[in-house]
Amino acid sequence: MSGEPSAGAASGIELEPLFYPKSIAVIGASQNLLKPNGIPVPLLLTFDYQGDIFPVNPKYRSIAGIKCYPTVFDIPGEVDLAIIGVAAERVLPCLRECAAMGVKAAIVFTSGFAEISVSGMSAQQEMAELARNSRMTILGPNCLGLLNYYNGNTSSFFFHEKPGRLAYPHFLSFITQSGGLGEIIYQMVLQLSVGFNYFISTGNEADISFAQILDYLARREEVTVIGGYLEGLPRDGRLFIDACKRALERRCLVTLLKVGRTGEGAAAAASHTGALVGEDRVYDGLFRQVGVVRADDVEQMNALIAFYAAGRIPAGKRIGIITISGGGGVVVADKCPQYGLEVVQLGEQTRSELQKIFPSYGITRNPVDITSQFLVQPDLFQQTIKLVMDDPLVDAGVYFYNLELPDPQAPRRIIESYRAVQKPLFIFCWPSGKEMALDAKRELIQAGIPVAEHISSGLWAIASLADWVARAERYQPVPAAAVKAYGKQGANLILSRGCRSLTESTSKQILSAYGIPVTREITARCPGEAVQAARELGYPVALKVESADILHKTEAGGVALNLCREAEVERAFYEIMDRVKSYRPGARIEGVLVQEMLRPGLEVIVGVKQDPVFGPAVLFGLGGILVELLKDVAIRVAPLREQDAREMLEEISGRLLLEGIRGEPPRDRRALVNILLRISELAVDLGDKIEEIDITPLLVYEEGAGAIAADALIILKN
Amino acid sequence: MSGEPSAGAASGIELEPLFYPKSIAVIGASQNLLKPNGIPVPLLLTFDYQGDIFPVNPKYRSIAGIKCYPTVFDIPGEVDLAIIGVAAERVLPCLRECAAMGVKAAIVFTSGFAEISVSGMSAQQEMAELARNSRMTILGPNCLGLLNYYNGNTSSFFFHEKPGRLAYPHFLSFITQSGGLGEIIYQMVLQLSVGFNYFISTGNEADISFAQILDYLARREEVTVIGGYLEGLPRDGRLFIDACKRALERRCLVTLLKVGRTGEGAAAAASHTGALVGEDRVYDGLFRQVGVVRADDVEQMNALIAFYAAGRIPAGKRIGIITISGGGGVVVADKCPQYGLEVVQLGEQTRSELQKIFPSYGITRNPVDITSQFLVQPDLFQQTIKLVMDDPLVDAGVYFYNLELPDPQAPRRIIESYRAVQKPLFIFCWPSGKEMALDAKRELIQAGIPVAEHISSGLWAIASLADWVARAERYQPVPAAAVKAYGKQGANLILSRGCRSLTESTSKQILSAYGIPVTREITARCPGEAVQAARELGYPVALKVESADILHKTEAGGVALNLCREAEVERAFYEIMDRVKSYRPGARIEGVLVQEMLRPGLEVIVGVKQDPVFGPAVLFGLGGILVELLKDVAIRVAPLREQDAREMLEEISGRLLLEGIRGEPPRDRRALVNILLRISELAVDLGDKIEEIDITPLLVYEEGAGAIAADALIILKN
Repeated sequence: MSGEPSAGAASGIELEPLFYPKSIAVIGASQNLLKPNGIPVPLLLTFDYQGDIFPVNPKYRSIAGIKCYPTVFDIPGEVDLAIIGVAAERVLPCLRECAAMGVKAAIVFTSGFAEISVSGMSAQQEMAELARNSRMTILGPNCLGLLNYYNGNTSSFFFHEKPGRLAYPHFLSFITQSGGLGEIIYQMVLQLSVGFNYFISTGNEADISFAQILDYLARREEVTVIGGYLEGLPRDGRLFIDACKRALERRCLVTLLKVGRTGEGAAAAASHTGALVGEDRVYDGLFRQVGVVRADDVEQMNALIAFYAAGRIPAGKRIGIITISGGGGVVVADKCPQYGLEVVQLGEQTRSELQKIFPSYGITRNPVDITSQFLVQPDLFQQTIKLVMDDPLVDAGVYFYNLELPDPQAPRRIIESYRAVQKPLFIFCWPSGKEMALDAKRELIQAGIPVAEHISSGLWAIASLADWVARAERYQPVPAAAVKAYGKQGANLILSRGCRSLTESTSKQILSAYGIPVTREITARCPGEAVQAARELGYPVALKVESADILHKTEAGGVALNLCREAEVERAFYEIMDRVKSYRPGARIEGVLVQEMLRPGLEVIVGVKQDPVFGPAVLFGLGGILVELLKDVAIRVAPLREQDAREMLEEISGRLLLEGIRGEPPRDRRALVNILLRISELAVDLGDKIEEIDITPLLVYEEGAGAIAADALIILKN
Repeated sequence: MSGEPSAGAASGIELEPLFYPKSIAVIGASQNLLKPNGIPVPLLLTFDYQGDIFPVNPKYRSIAGIKCYPTVFDIPGEVDLAIIGVAAERVLPCLRECAAMGVKAAIVFTSGFAEISVSGMSAQQEMAELARNSRMTILGPNCLGLLNYYNGNTSSFFFHEKPGRLAYPHFLSFITQSGGLGEIIYQMVLQLSVGFNYFISTGNEADISFAQILDYLARREEVTVIGGYLEGLPRDGRLFIDACKRALERRCLVTLLKVGRTGEGAAAAASHTGALVGEDRVYDGLFRQVGVVRADDVEQMNALIAFYAAGRIPAGKRIGIITISGGGGVVVADKCPQYGLEVVQLGEQTRSELQKIFPSYGITRNPVDITSQFLVQPDLFQQTIKLVMDDPLVDAGVYFYNLELPDPQAPRRIIESYRAVQKPLFIFCWPSGKEMALDAKRELIQAGIPVAEHISSGLWAIASLADWVARAERYQPVPAAAVKAYGKQGANLILSRGCRSLTESTSKQILSAYGIPVTREITARCPGEAVQAARELGYPVALKVESADILHKTEAGGVALNLCREAEVERAFYEIMDRVKSYRPGARIEGVLVQEMLRPGLEVIVGVKQDPVFGPAVLFGLGGILVELLKDVAIRVAPLREQDAREMLEEISGRLLLEGIRGEPPRDRRALVNILLRISELAVDLGDKIEEIDITPLLVYEEGAGAIAADALIILKN
């Protein structure tokens, strides 16, 4: 899985001096090893960095045996990368000097910028401007720096030693928005006998962003797995998406510990969709879309990395469980369904073969219980593993039990059994404090066997790997979105209005231009026109006030339903006008929309909301209490592929209503998928003008009978 | 928290010889230390058991220096407890000999009984009979035995050493249905510096059950926390409930790792309730009812035990988080809401005090970030902990960070800070493999500081402790259930029928006898009677076929709704008769039920199902898709207290519908609670006759307007 770095990746060229500098200057280098700016020089030496190192500090003649220069200007050669760990107030002058000297990249360790104060924020903005106006890229400030384990470019104050022999050296690339957590995760990953190729702490991201680093890594052949700790992207949302897609296309696993699940800024929103699309839910939907495996916890991420490192990917989710104590098997089996894993029934042949070698009290059904008999019957363990793993019904195996048994041969037995089979086999054990178990675990891990100490996380990782590879296999890029002719029509309709929100009628015209079916309807300016319209549409009809100033028509008394006669239409017209005028006296009223009454169907909501980072996000949910009470919705970032739209339908808890339950027919999911794709196109075309779209309800009929927007609202950008 | 055992607890006297034997015979004792029957004698010596030990084996003269007897009959004194580890076929003869000798209790290690075969099952039944017919109790077979750390009665083949110095010796009592898992958990708990007072492996439970052991422990004063691994109770459900209640009343924490969440035997059920009340869901409801903390994983259970051992119980769920790296605080804060914990906003005063001592880049809002500044400002750490914990808005504190810092003083600082405050403070760290971190963790734990290495489990444990203590504080026993006069009436109504299910009308008469409001209705035998009944009830009315042979009236075409005129009633009568007769030709039809039409209300389902272990369980859920799609129901075991009924209403995801949303009024929850209590009484009174009850829909009206059963079905026991 590891390899040598590829020279000159297609793009990301501007980050080369950061990752592969020919020379590094350490500004403010110190002889004090406990200070951030005292660490880089010895660290570079420890990791055998072969380029030139230029410590800069007027106080010293040399540092760690290397000549020290009083200022940047005294450095005799070209500087590719400068490390800056000086006091906050000295950072900007230093950066300017570096830029003036033609330094290509800088890393700023120093904190005390945007993270603490308004003045820090403005200093950081100056830093960003400097980067834009010079040809120097800047990582940080407030970051731990960067580590490249190929060339020893350890431009960091993360003081650590060269790792010993690892089962999987040069394996993981890691990007972190928290230096502190990054350090801990680094140490934890090493315990899995997994090494790093790159490790980058992005800090405040004044210039270089998380997404840019991801993009750089995703382009490099030697990078096969990228992990990360992510709090949120301040910008470069589209670059992030493209980088993730690129990674997925070339089967580079991306797994992120994304925090902020609960910190959804529930800002006041004008539409239902607006209120339902929280920032974190967009990440969630997007991650599924582009195959990023979202870890909920460091235990999950580490299990995933360890399992992936071992290089055996489950072809499916049918699990065979092997244990030496019944209880252990039960505990694992019990949790499988939670992660979509199936404790498969073993084939007849497997069971009868097991029967032949098992003691009478062994259990040959899954979970398979060898019992402690293997202590006296040495081959039993290996034979069992082989039989279970060779069963064509089994996609992956889990061997669970502690390593505390008084059997010094246990690790060797497990290693041999593992190597004797081809399919993925994962070893689960609970964390023991016993020396024997710790040693055994270490032995297994060093032999490259995938081990997890947390059952739930291990099962999650198996399921996630199976999902990820399935997603990568069926991945298809979105066809390049072309602005359609009707896009212009929509845009013109919008531009012809001067207000924040469009009326229902205008909103529907735009939807209709994109091929989304809407109710037949006619705007009437007087009772006579209303009656005429009703006659054209056919009874029964609904009347709805048409005014861009009134977003909530029902609340304003601006709606009358199920009108069956001329007299009813006439009366309703007057009543609506009266009620609306008293509800909002100054409202501009364009008339009353006379609309066909739709026959009942399954009510769903389809919507769009602009995400500040990723652009338009498309929402789908079932109408009624499922969406209102349980926020049971699926979200994806536009543009959608057909596959995304189909997954949205699968994802909601109320999906059975679409499939048809309680004698209800299956619904026209094909029509629904089509509408999601159309609204995605609309959102991409007109994304610069539209803030939110709400189609609620959209009525979905039985298979083949389509779906129609009963009401719609488009809110424009300010 | 620990103490000396109480002498002669009120009951459970029959288990005294098992726990506190004056003498122990080891039948089939072996000199081979690797065999189960070779372990007990040396183990008893290691643990300084002071009673008489009688090894029995004709092959040896002595074992471990103790005289060995050829047979049980050769033992010169009384035997309280016999340990039996002989081959399966020898077990029953041995037990008979022991019983004949007046042995009071026996432990059977041997496996190969009900867990493996039908013949094993019948041997086990013989064992159970022997126990019933003699005065000898039996633990096992297929068990690891019992350990009493007060008197050194280590009648087990769990070979282990005397634990070293522990922060909390003699603290945990543990009951396990899996010996193997029990051993692992034992070792894990010791790593928390928590010791055991009792440890019992129950095996196949031929005689002594999990519930009996729980009952015994719950009565003992020195037992303050009981943990357990539970797969399922084969019997003694009511004893289990009483034991849990007794434990809760005296503030003894019970926490069980109960597996089987997904193994619900979805057997075909006649009623909706029957299909919804799965075996595991009854456990779930019952555990809430009696204050058993259900752990989902060993990490959760261990965190709970460690936190409880430290003896500081959170008075609420408002958490203050302290970290030395921003990211660490975010990771913890992010997970709090998932467990109902609030990352509370700190008081103004706290923040301004923190401001005074913090570096400019420190963060004084919760999560509080000291930054690495504490390395150079030694008192900062302790001062911050004190300020945050002293904030009256904070119920409990979490200090999260790794222990990998190059600061040998870190553990001392944490210990001093912990001891300087009174409120609960929990230390979270990720599992590090670094020696420094391992040592630091050990130091903290040995000092009795509560440490958790798994964030989610730690937060779960804090929330669970807060919930548990709140539940214990408001715990009130159920008033002794008295069979009411109307109970007899119900019973008579039932006895007068000869069929499996009762008609709607009879079912409702029974509900009505228990004070549950039902529709007004009259049974009519001919169209004339139907018209007369409709006149009496007032239009509109519904007609429903009345037949104990037809469970699903709508399906049979046996229902007509909203009839407004005499002619409609007459026609409906004939039509129903026609349809029902062709639907089920031989059905006994008692007539047609003429029923008032209820005005619309919130539809809910209330039901009862007999659980094979716990007896009648009461179910509550919202009608419609929430219950059908999402199985959104609450379950409790009868009898219910008012508090249980109220909690059921709170527990369902759709509870907002009861509270009133979308312009709907709040519903009459008081009436609903009352109905749940009434049906609970009914279920207790008539539990020996009734298998299932379904009230669906029960219509719940706005506050003060009550609730009425629109339809009801009672299914009798076979």
